[in-house]
Amino acid sequence: MDLTRATDAPWLLRRVRPMGGAAIDVLVQAGRIAAVGPELTPPAGTPEEEGGGALLLPGLVESHTHLDKTLWGLPWYRNAVGHRLIDRIDNERGFRAASGHDAATQSMRLARAFLAAGTTRLRSHVDIDTQAGLRHLAGVQRTAAALAPWLQIQTVAFPQSGLLGRPGTAELLGAALAEGADVLGGLDPCAIDGDPVRSLDVLFGLAERHGKPLDIHLHEPGAMGAFSLGLILERTAALGMQGRVAVSHAFCLGDLPAAEVQALLARLAALDVSLVTSAPSSRSVPPLLAARAAGVTVAGGNDGIRDTWTPYGSPDMLARAMQIGLRYNLRRDDEIEQTLDCVTAVGARACGFGAHGLAPGCRADLVLVEAETVAEAVVARPTRRLVVAGGRIVARDGHLLPGLPGEEAPPSMPAPVS
Amino acid sequence: MDLTRATDAPWLLRRVRPMGGAAIDVLVQAGRIAAVGPELTPPAGTPEEEGGGALLLPGLVESHTHLDKTLWGLPWYRNAVGHRLIDRIDNERGFRAASGHDAATQSMRLARAFLAAGTTRLRSHVDIDTQAGLRHLAGVQRTAAALAPWLQIQTVAFPQSGLLGRPGTAELLGAALAEGADVLGGLDPCAIDGDPVRSLDVLFGLAERHGKPLDIHLHEPGAMGAFSLGLILERTAALGMQGRVAVSHAFCLGDLPAAEVQALLARLAALDVSLVTSAPSSRSVPPLLAARAAGVTVAGGNDGIRDTWTPYGSPDMLARAMQIGLRYNLRRDDEIEQTLDCVTAVGARACGFGAHGLAPGCRADLVLVEAETVAEAVVARPTRRLVVAGGRIVARDGHLLPGLPGEEAPPSMPAPVS
Ligand SMILES: [Zn+2]
Ligand SMILES: [Zn+2]
Repeated sequence: MDLTRATDAPWLLRRVRPMGGAAIDVLVQAGRIAAVGPELTPPAGTPEEEGGGALLLPGLVESHTHLDKTLWGLPWYRNAVGHRLIDRIDNERGFRAASGHDAATQSMRLARAFLAAGTTRLRSHVDIDTQAGLRHLAGVQRTAAALAPWLQIQTVAFPQSGLLGRPGTAELLGAALAEGADVLGGLDPCAIDGDPVRSLDVLFGLAERHGKPLDIHLHEPGAMGAFSLGLILERTAALGMQGRVAVSHAFCLGDLPAAEVQALLARLAALDVSLVTSAPSSRSVPPLLAARAAGVTVAGGNDGIRDTWTPYGSPDMLARAMQIGLRYNLRRDDEIEQTLDCVTAVGARACGFGAHGLAPGCRADLVLVEAETVAEAVVARPTRRLVVAGGRIVARDGHLLPGLPGEEAPPSMPAPVS
Repeated sequence: MDLTRATDAPWLLRRVRPMGGAAIDVLVQAGRIAAVGPELTPPAGTPEEEGGGALLLPGLVESHTHLDKTLWGLPWYRNAVGHRLIDRIDNERGFRAASGHDAATQSMRLARAFLAAGTTRLRSHVDIDTQAGLRHLAGVQRTAAALAPWLQIQTVAFPQSGLLGRPGTAELLGAALAEGADVLGGLDPCAIDGDPVRSLDVLFGLAERHGKPLDIHLHEPGAMGAFSLGLILERTAALGMQGRVAVSHAFCLGDLPAAEVQALLARLAALDVSLVTSAPSSRSVPPLLAARAAGVTVAGGNDGIRDTWTPYGSPDMLARAMQIGLRYNLRRDDEIEQTLDCVTAVGARACGFGAHGLAPGCRADLVLVEAETVAEAVVARPTRRLVVAGGRIVARDGHLLPGLPGEEAPPSMPAPVS
């Protein structure tokens, strides 16, 4: 079962409590869950790992981050950036030019920290712009390829500087998709591009031409955001892209009249358009429970983690689940379980990661923590006792095992995982 | 310098960087900081502790928690409580009756966790009601007395069930103050007591009679909260209680017109009435930077920690500083430093804890963390490498040293500190 042994032989995880339920055993074979049940009796000689009654979670899912931007593992970045969006975009461009920021190394550092904390599926937006071209994409793709057996990374070709403003961007996005970017990204068609109809026509046209799903950053507030969201929904229907469009942030759904929100939620559900939220403390957010009740897929993600935009964020998706709980004032155990859902099953659904879960046939992505219930796991965020990814044990007690790609000598002042 | 040695002999903390500045040494004697400066040369034979260039913070200050309520260290409490205030109050009363909840044991557990994470001053509200009488106060006072040389705990006599609704409550509050409660607490004079003028007259009368400061929970939103706040400010002026009144939460200051907020901030500053915020993600909050700019003292606190009201909260005040940063969207280093201020110097000022800081003459409450800057300490919340309280080393690498009061055999499933 060791990660360095390239074997499809079965092994058994003994006595674990899936989602806090009664203890069972999990039989793993060829990277999949082969069987689950109380006191399984595999053939004599099957290797066993004792779970000790720990809580078993499925592999955690990060539905929205920016691996290419992170400064994780580097000396502390002193943030003295202005507060406007344009300040942050310009600052990042200047920083990258001056620092020789390397998206391959940095994405690997953060991806490894995610894996150590139990994340086995991850969607990363990656900046595509006329200055850097596809360089950041190539860096993140290198990390994705190296970690593929354990951590599945989707790349989103993301026009951080806008789609229409800089001629050549649409072509670069097309090239990124041709180069294997998994998803096409978008950004504020009114506020950034200033021409929402043309912006979304270009964007959906690219997605259709390349047969790729969409994930659109929509920060626009109130009525402006609702207007853009309406245009997105129209095009989703017109192009038959049901189930292939995600809208990230959607702050507008947090500051519109209730009836308008309900109408939009109904359309999102009908067209199977997902929402992805980081549940920011300082912004309006889509109503989580109402959206779920309306049948909308709402996934959770960090957004940026320790980059020139923000010092915050953590590769621990249980910490993100807790932030979701805090943001929506979810205090009951049954409510807090829904925050875990955002970073497991629902996240997998929003991003289209298949075979996620704890049932036979699912990818054997397993996370063990010392906790009584799911709610305790979210609130206490215990050290990951064991992480299994693609059927192999990759981390124990919060630390990756040796032998995985991207190993480095430990820095003199290590950054904690959570 | 060991906590078990009862000695006033000097000792030296070598090479630490106060607030991230240049490395200095700190000479400690008789529980105080005796001298600070580069390469101090104390008499030969003075014991030394090597700081290794770590970041030095002053002792952390928790300005608002409820030690008597916490379930810290107990098996996970499955929260299935209704969402109304009355549901939570009734549930807690029933839980306490059924569980034999012991405020002495529980406050000790949480207080020790605070100390291990570098908190050396703490204000705890303690429920006073006609059912429990002064029992919870006695429990927290026992913890406060036992830990007094290291962790200074203030008790607030707090009418959780209201001041006017249950006859005998005011008398109990008076008895609590006579029994040594440090501060008189209050609660929503409109929303809970239904008679704001009489409620506040009784409350301020009690405070005046006993010569105690006030700390009033004010959850009331918008215009109602502003009305109550106005009554509080009037009485503060009339009774000459400047500098002796704190208002906790003050959500109303987050949802009033800007001009009205500015006028209230000016009155708060003029009367030296402090605000205490937990910076909740899901509520309106007083404008931190505007309040500070207006000269208002704004301290930070958890409110309840892992109790029947809420599963959230942490005895790590760096985590609370980070929540303040997230809530106010503070990303620049200079802004994040202000969140640390809320849980150090400003917290000490709000609660009236004297001799706080890193200057000679201050109580030797020192916290060492591996971080480059204050902002990194807040965002990364590193394990406390060393905690000095009242001049003695009490914790290393996040763990209290043996010999302090309240030691227990470790539980089979320990809850992490942060
Ligand atoms: Zn983003
Ligand atoms: Zn409180």
